Amino acid sequence: MPSEFDYISWIRGRTRRDARVPIGIGDDTAAVAITPGRQALVTTDMLLEGIHFDRAACGARAVGRKAMAVNLSDMAAMAGVPIAAVVALALPRPVDTALAEALDDGLRACADEYGVVIAGGDTNASPNGLVVAVTLIGETTLRGAVRRGGARVGDTILVSGTLGGSILGKHLDFTPRVREALRLHECYELHAMIDLSDGLAADLGHILAESGCAAVLRAADIPISDASRRMADPLPPLEHALRDGEDFELLFTLAPDDARRLVREQPLPVPVCAIGEISSGSGIVLEQSDGVRVPLESAGYDHFRC
Amino acid sequence: MPSEFDYISWIRGRTRRDARVPIGIGDDTAAVAITPGRQALVTTDMLLEGIHFDRAACGARAVGRKAMAVNLSDMAAMAGVPIAAVVALALPRPVDTALAEALDDGLRACADEYGVVIAGGDTNASPNGLVVAVTLIGETTLRGAVRRGGARVGDTILVSGTLGGSILGKHLDFTPRVREALRLHECYELHAMIDLSDGLAADLGHILAESGCAAVLRAADIPISDASRRMADPLPPLEHALRDGEDFELLFTLAPDDARRLVREQPLPVPVCAIGEISSGSGIVLEQSDGVRVPLESAGYDHFRC
Repeated sequence: MPSEFDYISWIRGRTRRDARVPIGIGDDTAAVAITPGRQALVTTDMLLEGIHFDRAACGARAVGRKAMAVNLSDMAAMAGVPIAAVVALALPRPVDTALAEALDDGLRACADEYGVVIAGGDTNASPNGLVVAVTLIGETTLRGAVRRGGARVGDTILVSGTLGGSILGKHLDFTPRVREALRLHECYELHAMIDLSDGLAADLGHILAESGCAAVLRAADIPISDASRRMADPLPPLEHALRDGEDFELLFTLAPDDARRLVREQPLPVPVCAIGEISSGSGIVLEQSDGVRVPLESAGYDHFRC
Repeated sequence: MPSEFDYISWIRGRTRRDARVPIGIGDDTAAVAITPGRQALVTTDMLLEGIHFDRAACGARAVGRKAMAVNLSDMAAMAGVPIAAVVALALPRPVDTALAEALDDGLRACADEYGVVIAGGDTNASPNGLVVAVTLIGETTLRGAVRRGGARVGDTILVSGTLGGSILGKHLDFTPRVREALRLHECYELHAMIDLSDGLAADLGHILAESGCAAVLRAADIPISDASRRMADPLPPLEHALRDGEDFELLFTLAPDDARRLVREQPLPVPVCAIGEISSGSGIVLEQSDGVRVPLESAGYDHFRC
C-alpha cells in the first residue's frame, strides 16, 4: 500500500456518481439529497476483529460485506430506503494492500447490490486488528418509518425466513431484508418491526419493551432452520431458533386480519410465518407443543459481560 | 457497569427530545428531519487509543469531547449546520463504569454546546483499547455547502486563529469553528474552505488538488501560535505553523475585494489573516521574509506510513 492518500484515491476512482449524493469523497463532509417530505434515517454499526469476526477464518472481503449488510438490515427494520454510507476504518499495521482492497471489495459489492453510494469515510491504521464502522444514511418512504414501539395487544407476531444456527454460515452471507421490508410496508399495515440480530427472544423483548406489552410465542410455529438442527452442541434446535443471534430476518407485528392475508399471500421470496400474539402485561410466554406455557427469558447478548 | 443495556438506558435517559430528531435511541435507525430544500451533510471520524490519544494522559472525557469536536470541525469546513450524531464505540474490557460515563460526558458536553442531539449508536466491548467513531449529520444553509474545489486564480487565502503546536493542548480543547464558518458563509462569498486537521501545507494542498490550481504563501503573514514558539524541539515556529496537524482552524479563499473587507471587518472572535494567493499551475510556493520564493512540500500525515 503506497500511502493512505493513494488508498483514498483508489476508492474514490471506484465510486460512481449519483444524483442523490451531490458531494462524495474528497470533501470534509458528504452531501445527501433527502426527498422533501421524507425523514433522513441514520444507523451505525462497528465490527471489531476478535469480537465480531475471525479475519483469518473469513477473510477481509467477508468482513467488508458484513459491515455494510448489518447496517442495511437495520435500515430494513425501519422499512427505510438506503442511499449512502460513510466508512470509518482502522487497518492493521503494517497496512497490507490486499487486505485493504478486499475489504473495499466486500463493502462495495454489498453497497452496489442495494444502490448505496459510498460517500466518504475516515481511514486509519490500527495497532490492534481491523475495525470497521459503517454509518448508513437512508430515508423514509411516503408511509414513514416502522418502529419497535407500535405493537398492539392482539397483534399477530410474524417472522421472515428460518431461525437459528447462523454461526454455521448465514452470519456472513445473510440477505439484509431491505426489499422485503419495503414490500411488506407497501402492502400491509406494519405496526412494529425489528431485525433479528440479538436472537428471536431478545429482539421480541425489544419490541415489547418499546411497545409496553407482552407476547405469547407458539413453539410449534417457530420456523427452525436446517442449521439449527446441524449444530454440534446438545441444545435442542428450538433453543437455537429462540436464542442465536445474527439471523438478520424481519420480526414484525400486524393486526390479525392483515396477518392472515399475508400468510396466505406469502409476498416474499422467503416464507413468512405467524409465530404468536401480542398480549397485555410484560414478558414472553412460550407455548410448548404440549400446550404447556412457560415464561421465556428475553435477555440478549451483552457485549459488556460476554 | 451492570450491562450494555443498562448503559444504553442511562445514555437514553440523558438525551433530550428535539423536533429535528423525531426518532432517537431505542430503534434500529434514528430519524433526522432535514429542512426541505437543504441537503443532508454527513461526516465520520474514528479515534483509536494508541493512535489518536493517550487515554491514561488525557482521560476519557477529553476523548469523548474530541471525538465529537473533530466531526463538528468537518461540518464547519462545509459551512454546515450540525443536527445529530450517532456514536459507535468499543469500550476496553472489562468495561469500567467510570470510563464509560466520562466518555459520554465528554461527547455530550460538546454535542450540547453545538445543539447536536445524540440520536443513536452502537456499543461494543473492545479487546484492545478504546475506539470511538462518531458520525455527524447536519444540513446545508440556504447558500449551500462550501467545498474544497471552489478556489479561483487570484483568490486571497485566509486563515482563522493562530497555527502550530496544538500538541501542547489545543488538539484536545480546540473550538470547532461551526459558528465562525456560518458567520463567514453568511457575510462573504466563500469560494473554497477546509478545516486544518492535517496542517496548513497539507490542507492547502487538498484545496489546490480539488480546485486544480496553485498557491503562494507569504511566510511573514502566517499567524504563528504561542504554542509553536514554546515547542521544545529545534524546528523554527514557522515550520510548526506550516506542518503541525490538529489546529482545527478554517482555511478558505475569497475574491480579493471580499478578503480586504473581511480583514478590515474582523467578524470573528479570533483574528482572520490573509496569508497568500491562489495562482495558476500546481503546488505551493512559500515567499520567505527576505522575498525569496521556495517550493513547499504539501504531503500530510499518512496513517499508513507513520
